[in-house]
Amino acid sequence: MRLGALEAGGTKMVCAIVDDEGHISDRFTTPTEDPEKTLKILYDYFAERQIDCLGIACFGPIDLHEDSPTYGCVTTSPKVAWRNVNVVKAFEGLGVPVGFDTDVNGSVLGETTYGIGRGVKNCVYITIGTGIGIGVLSEGRLLHGMLHPEGGHILLPMSPDDPMERGICPNHPNCFEGLAAGPSIEKRWGKSAKELGDRDDVWDVEAFYIANALVSYTMTLSPELFILGGGVMHKADVLLPKVRAKYAELMNNYIQTKQTADLEHYIVCQSLDDNQGLLGAAEIGRMALGKAR
Amino acid sequence: MRLGALEAGGTKMVCAIVDDEGHISDRFTTPTEDPEKTLKILYDYFAERQIDCLGIACFGPIDLHEDSPTYGCVTTSPKVAWRNVNVVKAFEGLGVPVGFDTDVNGSVLGETTYGIGRGVKNCVYITIGTGIGIGVLSEGRLLHGMLHPEGGHILLPMSPDDPMERGICPNHPNCFEGLAAGPSIEKRWGKSAKELGDRDDVWDVEAFYIANALVSYTMTLSPELFILGGGVMHKADVLLPKVRAKYAELMNNYIQTKQTADLEHYIVCQSLDDNQGLLGAAEIGRMALGKAR
Repeated sequence: MRLGALEAGGTKMVCAIVDDEGHISDRFTTPTEDPEKTLKILYDYFAERQIDCLGIACFGPIDLHEDSPTYGCVTTSPKVAWRNVNVVKAFEGLGVPVGFDTDVNGSVLGETTYGIGRGVKNCVYITIGTGIGIGVLSEGRLLHGMLHPEGGHILLPMSPDDPMERGICPNHPNCFEGLAAGPSIEKRWGKSAKELGDRDDVWDVEAFYIANALVSYTMTLSPELFILGGGVMHKADVLLPKVRAKYAELMNNYIQTKQTADLEHYIVCQSLDDNQGLLGAAEIGRMALGKAR
Repeated sequence: MRLGALEAGGTKMVCAIVDDEGHISDRFTTPTEDPEKTLKILYDYFAERQIDCLGIACFGPIDLHEDSPTYGCVTTSPKVAWRNVNVVKAFEGLGVPVGFDTDVNGSVLGETTYGIGRGVKNCVYITIGTGIGIGVLSEGRLLHGMLHPEGGHILLPMSPDDPMERGICPNHPNCFEGLAAGPSIEKRWGKSAKELGDRDDVWDVEAFYIANALVSYTMTLSPELFILGGGVMHKADVLLPKVRAKYAELMNNYIQTKQTADLEHYIVCQSLDDNQGLLGAAEIGRMALGKAR
């Protein structure tokens, strides 16, 4: 089987062919530019390769309701040129089943199929990079609901040690993304995350926000595993122990399960070298193929 | 069909027989006292009536994993006498299938089967009374995950207008329940909710916390409908318009769906005269019967 996989990000598009066992071949990357131009490049890439299905893990917000007239479209994205662009329709000409979901749902699917979350039925994947998003597997199925989770925009208490007065999200003064994504760190301390080294003040504030978010995810989504990815998590050596400690402090033994008793295995980093989204996209394609049969 | 229904609350137990169409008969209430004594009364009630199945919607936290050795037990409840009591086992002698879930999952099931949420596949029910809990229907199924949602304990920012310095939850200084359940209101203003009348300062603070919680539920669980119940919502005439207004302000157009464009139908009160838990319990029983067949 040849699964076509497209990880459609706000800055770049990554394509590949993935086999039945999750081996990635023939990877190709192109920047996310004018939609018409970019989609043509991507279409041609897949048209030239014999694929059985295509899975797209896409930046959002997107319309995932198959019975909606705008199914397959990017909706209220800050990437204005891509608003109302129908990403699914762009690949109809390939004549293969096309699956479509969020980039972070791709990542949670990749990690629970091939990675550290293999076999876990209730898992939350959190990407913390230029933005923050969550992908949710609930009882073995990707959670969509009314739209899809937008976990980067839950509202958090401000850290008493935060030198900023508010986060940088244009919509919310105190959402997770506005307080803890990469650009917020840079704004807060006046330097990029890389330049900030291992400073405790920096990563204590960051861990405060991540841990607050994880507690609220536990209380709402009740996952058996948290997987953290994205650029900010490249600082995991310093950050992850702080996140676990703060999580335990905030949770304060309210929930006592075997998972919360073992935070080193409950709150972990992505395990697939940032291929989780691409491998998840392949799985989204496989699911579309299953439905079409 | 005669569906046995037990709404097992922390202060009282409500039993009834429910027919196929949701008609409640033969209602019986007994206080929640010593577990052995109370469970005997309840067992006898159902044993004397011919029932096809029993559904229990129970206060928690509880163990819902059927493959767990403590399945059917109340776990870390503040009602210490009930800790580790196996509620399901207590009814094994009836010889009928027994279903078991949380009280709030019962309510969301009751409302989406017989009430204002009929037919909705993604719904969050929030009870705001002596405590706060959420029941979650996700893609048509009750959400459990690692444990079950404990939505009363998400961590919220403090309202700048709150005269209290912290909430009253012993575990969390700023969780939803500790800031917004009935006892918190009484502690904050020194009077019971009933005595506080329609005072704007009182219900503005309350609406702030409820709206913050609903925004975070939207960002994580992405429901198509919110249903609010519990004693505090008896003040809905004053409270609900404030909740909707604050929700719109906090959301600040970040998510634009047909539901969020029509908050009068997105955020509503329970519709079943506080029978939603009992009717949901009957449905939990019916589901157990379906599984057993």
